[in-house]
Amino acid sequence: MFAYIKGTVEEKNNDSIIVEAGGIGYRIFTALSTINNMGQNGTTVKIYTHYYVREDIAVLYGFGTVEELTMFEMLLTVSGVGPKAAISMISTLSPSRFYLAVVSQDTKSLTKAPGIGMKMAQRIILDLKDKISKEQLTSSIPMTSPENNEVTGDSVLSEAVSALMVLGYGSAEASSTISGIYEKGISVEELVKKALKSL
Amino acid sequence: MFAYIKGTVEEKNNDSIIVEAGGIGYRIFTALSTINNMGQNGTTVKIYTHYYVREDIAVLYGFGTVEELTMFEMLLTVSGVGPKAAISMISTLSPSRFYLAVVSQDTKSLTKAPGIGMKMAQRIILDLKDKISKEQLTSSIPMTSPENNEVTGDSVLSEAVSALMVLGYGSAEASSTISGIYEKGISVEELVKKALKSL
Amino acid sequence: MFAYIKGTVEEKNNDSIIVEAGGIGYRIFTALSTINNMGQNGTTVKIYTHYYVREDIAVLYGFGTVEELTMFEMLLTVSGVGPKAAISMISTLSPSRFYLAVVSQDTKSLTKAPGIGMKMAQRIILDLKDKISKEQLTSSIPMTSPENNEVTGDSVLSEAVSALMVLGYGSAEASSTISGIYEKGISVEELVKKALKSL
Amino acid sequence: MFAYIKGTVEEKNNDSIIVEAGGIGYRIFTALSTINNMGQNGTTVKIYTHYYVREDIAVLYGFGTVEELTMFEMLLTVSGVGPKAAISMISTLSPSRFYLAVVSQDTKSLTKAPGIGMKMAQRIILDLKDKISKEQLTSSIPMTSPENNEVTGDSVLSEAVSALMVLGYGSAEASSTISGIYEKGISVEELVKKALKSL
Repeated sequence: MFAYIKGTVEEKNNDSIIVEAGGIGYRIFTALSTINNMGQNGTTVKIYTHYYVREDIAVLYGFGTVEELTMFEMLLTVSGVGPKAAISMISTLSPSRFYLAVVSQDTKSLTKAPGIGMKMAQRIILDLKDKISKEQLTSSIPMTSPENNEVTGDSVLSEAVSALMVLGYGSAEASSTISGIYEKGISVEELVKKALKSL
Repeated sequence: MFAYIKGTVEEKNNDSIIVEAGGIGYRIFTALSTINNMGQNGTTVKIYTHYYVREDIAVLYGFGTVEELTMFEMLLTVSGVGPKAAISMISTLSPSRFYLAVVSQDTKSLTKAPGIGMKMAQRIILDLKDKISKEQLTSSIPMTSPENNEVTGDSVLSEAVSALMVLGYGSAEASSTISGIYEKGISVEELVKKALKSL
Repeated sequence: MFAYIKGTVEEKNNDSIIVEAGGIGYRIFTALSTINNMGQNGTTVKIYTHYYVREDIAVLYGFGTVEELTMFEMLLTVSGVGPKAAISMISTLSPSRFYLAVVSQDTKSLTKAPGIGMKMAQRIILDLKDKISKEQLTSSIPMTSPENNEVTGDSVLSEAVSALMVLGYGSAEASSTISGIYEKGISVEELVKKALKSL
Repeated sequence: MFAYIKGTVEEKNNDSIIVEAGGIGYRIFTALSTINNMGQNGTTVKIYTHYYVREDIAVLYGFGTVEELTMFEMLLTVSGVGPKAAISMISTLSPSRFYLAVVSQDTKSLTKAPGIGMKMAQRIILDLKDKISKEQLTSSIPMTSPENNEVTGDSVLSEAVSALMVLGYGSAEASSTISGIYEKGISVEELVKKALKSL
């Protein structure tokens, strides 16, 4: 029902912020990353929200970007994943890294999020890998600066190849395309993005 | 509780629009026809809404006209018909065509809506045919231009006669009235409307 | 949660009105008497509301006075009495006549309300007679003009005496006080009010 | 969802106030102490609120300070403690006295609140004593003027010592520290606060 709240930041806590609009202070639970990226108290913000309603609870979860909100709502569709686990994931992986981890079945990246064990990571992959569209995988890929690139050349290549294979491309076609456009220092996301453009 | 939301269109998606009022962006799920008829982003609109509340959901459905909202709320009273099926029907048939299809037991028109099978069409007819008032049948009949008239002369006549019979008029009286006022190219709705005025 | 809505009347229907505040059109279900007493569309009103929430419904009921809202909320505490029956009662009896009917166990008056049978009237009396305070009985008594006085002299006297007895006064004391201040044409409410002031 | 409501006081009752914001009168249930401390009707206030939602109820509870709201929300986590009992406690003990009573297992103070029996007091202590942080114990300690100090010197000393012991300090260390800084007329809270600063 509430797609977003536009108002002034009144308070920042560990797990929530308060945004005022029309004389009402809305408490919005969110990820630490969202809180840290937020302006000082008094600045005007637009928080993309999810109205979470259960029998004895009605709370707002919110994020700085539509992509984070979409990722949050996708995670909630996975049985056993509640708001806390979803927020923990968003605090750990950006939407694009998350989609890539799911598509390339990279449980290691998923389990970096506190509270996400191997079993839950596997269930997330199982439930979501067919729901992640090509657009989500590429459109939300920010130009990651080299120093974010914690992975070595080989694993960049293999991660990119498996990402394409999950998207339905044959291994031969995936490998030849990837190796054809690979350059030293390129990130997995850029490699996959470039490959998808040339396929 | 929310009869309508008056605000500016901020975003249009496949199944919903976002309308901002008082700093709050309200996500309103609606029919594709409503979205297509809506002005550009930034225009001020008045969306007639239904506040749909269940144990773990609280969402707004909305429409460009009160007639569409009434049709939506009527469909929700039919057991087995949820918001998705109701919206699918609204995307397919205008309120007047819908009322006419129900009153004249025209399952063919009803099942044109994606997701509406024969059984559900019959249940809709069974549940609603006695609830559709003469006013709804006639007052919401837009002057359909000839090219919207997909049906041939004969079926226009027979549809109009059966519509009157469902409204309680005898077949003789219905047939004589209809044939007396029939003109080439006239639509079913206009024919029924004219007949009801002369009866 | 919503004590009242202050806004402009946008629409009046048989069982509800729409009041706009802050760009939101609030649909408020109410009694026909309230609708009829309301100003024309466009006038600013203050409707005293009750936010009625169940598992799959969230609606507003509203009234022109706090007394009517209090009467509505009191009736809802009686098991088996839902919003429809409460509104029917409010459309039939003013708060003061209602309190008097309950206090003087006048089932005849209560059952004048459509949908209120003898059994429900008795349950209303049983549940509410000890909850009606002396203030509610007297403070909300409007000066009823003579022509509203459908009852004869004798029944005015007896109704007033039984009202005092229900409020805990002895029959002797009640009868002597009532007969001492009785005047031709006085209404039951005025008689009870005058008696309570002299006791 | 609603962290606070900023608006004008429109009405004060025994158990609630009505605050208007954006044309909506919000009924906020609260403690008598909060109502008494509130300005006259028409003054602008900021009430810190808790949106209490159950299957058939959606109400706002609110307080004049964040500390009272935090105390209220903490009490609700104790099984068997509902809003009424929590409000009764807030009407009786300030947050700091409450935290101290819990930390020093002072059931006598807790049971001063109407409706709070010995059993509930013990359950409150059991559930909350490990959740009360050092900051809550000290930061919310108002400089209580001497005359609020209903307790004698000895019980001030013993209460302060047991408060430190509950916070994990050894009895020897607690006693020596307390007795070292004790002055006639000092309140328990000031004594504990001073001790915590020197430890």
